[in-house]
Amino acid sequence: MQFEIKRTDLAARIGRMQTGHGTVETPAYVPVIHPAKQTIPASRIKEMGFDIVITNAYITRNTYGHDEAVRRGIHDIIKYDGAIMTDSGGYQVLEYGKVGVTPPEMAEFERGIRTDFAIPLDKPTGFGMRRDAAEAYVRDTLRVSREALRAAESAGNGSGGDGDGGQTWIGPIQGGEHRDLVARSAKSLVRMGFEMLALGSPVEFMESYEYRLLAEMIATAKRSMPHGIPLHLFGAGHPLTIPLAVALGCDTFDSASYILYARQDRYMTEDGTRTLDEIEYFPCCCAVCSRYEPGELRLMPREQKVNNIAVHNLYAIKLEVDRTKQAVAEGRLWEYVMKKSRAHPRLYEAVTHLMTPSSSSLPLSSSSSSPSSSSTSTSSQPSPSTPAPPPDISGMFRAGTPQYKQKAAFLYGAEDQHRPEVAAYHDIVRKFRTRKSIVAITPESHTKPGYMSREYRELYKRRGDDDDVQFCQYSPILGIIPIEVSDIYPAAHHEQARVRVDPAACTEFAKTWDAFFENNGFAEVWYDKNDAFLGHFAKRLKGVKKHNLRGAATAAARRTDTAPRGTTVQSK
Amino acid sequence: MQFEIKRTDLAARIGRMQTGHGTVETPAYVPVIHPAKQTIPASRIKEMGFDIVITNAYITRNTYGHDEAVRRGIHDIIKYDGAIMTDSGGYQVLEYGKVGVTPPEMAEFERGIRTDFAIPLDKPTGFGMRRDAAEAYVRDTLRVSREALRAAESAGNGSGGDGDGGQTWIGPIQGGEHRDLVARSAKSLVRMGFEMLALGSPVEFMESYEYRLLAEMIATAKRSMPHGIPLHLFGAGHPLTIPLAVALGCDTFDSASYILYARQDRYMTEDGTRTLDEIEYFPCCCAVCSRYEPGELRLMPREQKVNNIAVHNLYAIKLEVDRTKQAVAEGRLWEYVMKKSRAHPRLYEAVTHLMTPSSSSLPLSSSSSSPSSSSTSTSSQPSPSTPAPPPDISGMFRAGTPQYKQKAAFLYGAEDQHRPEVAAYHDIVRKFRTRKSIVAITPESHTKPGYMSREYRELYKRRGDDDDVQFCQYSPILGIIPIEVSDIYPAAHHEQARVRVDPAACTEFAKTWDAFFENNGFAEVWYDKNDAFLGHFAKRLKGVKKHNLRGAATAAARRTDTAPRGTTVQSK
Repeated sequence: MQFEIKRTDLAARIGRMQTGHGTVETPAYVPVIHPAKQTIPASRIKEMGFDIVITNAYITRNTYGHDEAVRRGIHDIIKYDGAIMTDSGGYQVLEYGKVGVTPPEMAEFERGIRTDFAIPLDKPTGFGMRRDAAEAYVRDTLRVSREALRAAESAGNGSGGDGDGGQTWIGPIQGGEHRDLVARSAKSLVRMGFEMLALGSPVEFMESYEYRLLAEMIATAKRSMPHGIPLHLFGAGHPLTIPLAVALGCDTFDSASYILYARQDRYMTEDGTRTLDEIEYFPCCCAVCSRYEPGELRLMPREQKVNNIAVHNLYAIKLEVDRTKQAVAEGRLWEYVMKKSRAHPRLYEAVTHLMTPSSSSLPLSSSSSSPSSSSTSTSSQPSPSTPAPPPDISGMFRAGTPQYKQKAAFLYGAEDQHRPEVAAYHDIVRKFRTRKSIVAITPESHTKPGYMSREYRELYKRRGDDDDVQFCQYSPILGIIPIEVSDIYPAAHHEQARVRVDPAACTEFAKTWDAFFENNGFAEVWYDKNDAFLGHFAKRLKGVKKHNLRGAATAAARRTDTAPRGTTVQSK
Repeated sequence: MQFEIKRTDLAARIGRMQTGHGTVETPAYVPVIHPAKQTIPASRIKEMGFDIVITNAYITRNTYGHDEAVRRGIHDIIKYDGAIMTDSGGYQVLEYGKVGVTPPEMAEFERGIRTDFAIPLDKPTGFGMRRDAAEAYVRDTLRVSREALRAAESAGNGSGGDGDGGQTWIGPIQGGEHRDLVARSAKSLVRMGFEMLALGSPVEFMESYEYRLLAEMIATAKRSMPHGIPLHLFGAGHPLTIPLAVALGCDTFDSASYILYARQDRYMTEDGTRTLDEIEYFPCCCAVCSRYEPGELRLMPREQKVNNIAVHNLYAIKLEVDRTKQAVAEGRLWEYVMKKSRAHPRLYEAVTHLMTPSSSSLPLSSSSSSPSSSSTSTSSQPSPSTPAPPPDISGMFRAGTPQYKQKAAFLYGAEDQHRPEVAAYHDIVRKFRTRKSIVAITPESHTKPGYMSREYRELYKRRGDDDDVQFCQYSPILGIIPIEVSDIYPAAHHEQARVRVDPAACTEFAKTWDAFFENNGFAEVWYDKNDAFLGHFAKRLKGVKKHNLRGAATAAARRTDTAPRGTTVQSK
């Protein structure tokens, strides 16, 4: 299978998978189609813009029998001419323990029905399983996967489906919250030669609000596999979690929730799920929601109501995927995920914990300290006193984030000091060297780059010809901005909310400050001693003469000579 | 005109206006219809769910002449059978200075064309006008309004449109950023007997990103008028600002932006505006966006393209209004506005400044201190050193926010200490009295209410029969929670993100802490001395014996005996 990566932001990628049944653009949601009882025709789902679906090979086999299924092929059975992924029944193992078919039989069957993406008969560890049990499941899954791949290869189309009808075999990663097992199975599957991997059963994590553990599991798997291999996430297709999953590098994700929820009158929104009774005004303009009032939907015959809610749920999921893709295209996925995280406290915890390390590495106030966020207590969870460090994903994010972007970066508060483009700028300044013996630091100007600003020109005039002065501006988030590099993105291209930022929370600023003064032997620092923020850091300076730059802070604050740059389009 | 308020949250209201042409539910967006050159038929706009539109009486008069217009009536002219509001041409004054028709003539004309809502020929101050000039404009507008109202009354249907075809006259508030003028004109108009007011020309505020000044202007007008009178906001119909405007109590708002933007290929999104060229994936599932690809739209003949973008823009605006109304219905408007504010740094400033006083009352770090956010500098703006205090809207919010709600309150960080339900709980505890001489304070339990929690029961056992102990739990946001009142909303019904909260930012916690110890003569306080958060406040206690409650903090952190309450639906 060919997987081409077109564009990246954070660890997210927009890519293209070539299959025997058309091109699939990723990230892609993969709706679950029931091979026998599907109420919303797969063809309708294709029209809605879903180019890949997943169905269950195990149920297909039980329903139609091996021979008929193989004769017709899965595309004819579910009446869908796009790309099809088949799950082998692993979920049934999770649910009922046994399936009554051997792994080699299933592999042979999946090959026989000519699916585009085949998954071996894995044993999902789920969430909350004791480590020894989980380890055994992982071992079995790896063995089965090796057999399936060998069988497929001997039958002439292995994981390297060549796009003309051959299967792509997907290696199932298991291990649940036991991260070492997740890492181990990912690595083993790559070694076996799988060209695509799938991460097992996050459903239960989500049902118990374990977004943080889910995110850590994804990050762990991603860091154990090559960049070029696509990752599927099993059973995770809710608008609430899609942006985070995509930001962490998931390329496809399936779920049946659109219909399962609909049967319980559960209506998906960008901020979570509501029961139809809770909806007074549809927060949606899809074909269903702009045609009916909530009251009308409530009064419909059950089947019609369920199908309408299911169609809305599909629209809601697709919308979230498209929003996320557009954010990637604009290079503002960080902003989107941060905003999105305010939809639920557990999601906010996950994002804060993973994306802004300092917020969680700082000592936690006790009432907010439970690292094992949980409604299901398990022996495996780290004890509150020794939280397991989150996998370092900042490296992943740095690698995937372009350093130069079209759009201005919007900065809100201390959390944004960890945004990859900002972190990269801190690194530049931490390497900055000058022989000058005086450094003058003033707040950043509205005019960008700083060397174009009136503040700089006037300050420069005040010292006229003195070329022993290193002029700098600063931003609490972006750090020290030496005038010479004030035109490098995002120094020249960001918009920062002018609200109070707690200096104690600006840990990256502190590191840059220390490095800047350590690397450069300044004898004097000039800054406005009324500037409380700089004052906080000036305290750290030993053996540097402090000179008061009167009015510099307020001068900058009063400046309103130019509009904030790069925001004409975003704002209003 | 009858205006009935059904429901409120913050200063927002869901209401119903009875007009001669049907009931209008508020908050409502009022699309601008061009009386002659409308390309999207008003009937189509009605089908989309807009029950009220606004058109320009001045242009109508110039186009059709007085007599024909009066003979046909405005409903026939624009082919719309819902409620119609007519602007008198004030905008033309703003644009061209003169209109060549006297105020009484316009008033007579608006009555003649049988509009449902008539607006006198006002003189918009806009934004950035010097105070003396603005004052003159306000004076003129008030005089004209008085004349118009008198003329209408003498003609037998005054501001008290009785729902059978009579007009409702809307009093135009002017004054721009000069808040005293805004307050004065609002009060005068109410005294004159206007049953509805309209706030003048925020367009320019928005075009210069002055969301903060816009919000202050709205808050000022609201605080100068009775609760029962609806407020219209002129020219402010962008998805970015709608939730804030509604939260501040605007009931209707018009704008022509849906079509004006469309003519410039500008596509509205919930987070701002994009040019069509910037859109790779429509972040929308409306009739237009789910039918076409961005590329197809770009290639359309101009008129077809403009109309399609305009229809999308109308859907985007309606969606934002419906989302906001649903948030009011769920009692989570605070959460929605806070989340929404992350769409643009200037919006975030406005929300932070207005809704979370302490964040801005704290000394500003200089580089983030400009209170006169601006791209157009005006003499009138407060100097950075002495920012004008924002109008106190917390009172408005408290009055409009029900103290008991169905849904759990989601709490994220220090900003939520100002959420009305939270502030109300702080007030309860600040009045709490007990004769007990010992107070034991532990982190809040996952089980709510606290008196049902294992932590409490075990702690209680530890002291067995001692009834001299006042047991309390605490939350950094909600403050001290005496066990006796731990079942009062939202103490028993909130979900707090477990991330580090900076004690220094918890100003409401500090006030409650001081009041609690001042009102109750505790001799001893028991708390876990490893609890950094409590330690920060314990320092403030003089003459109270501090007793270490070993392990209380970690015990609470380890507790995972129950799922967070009230979130089954919201999450996943």
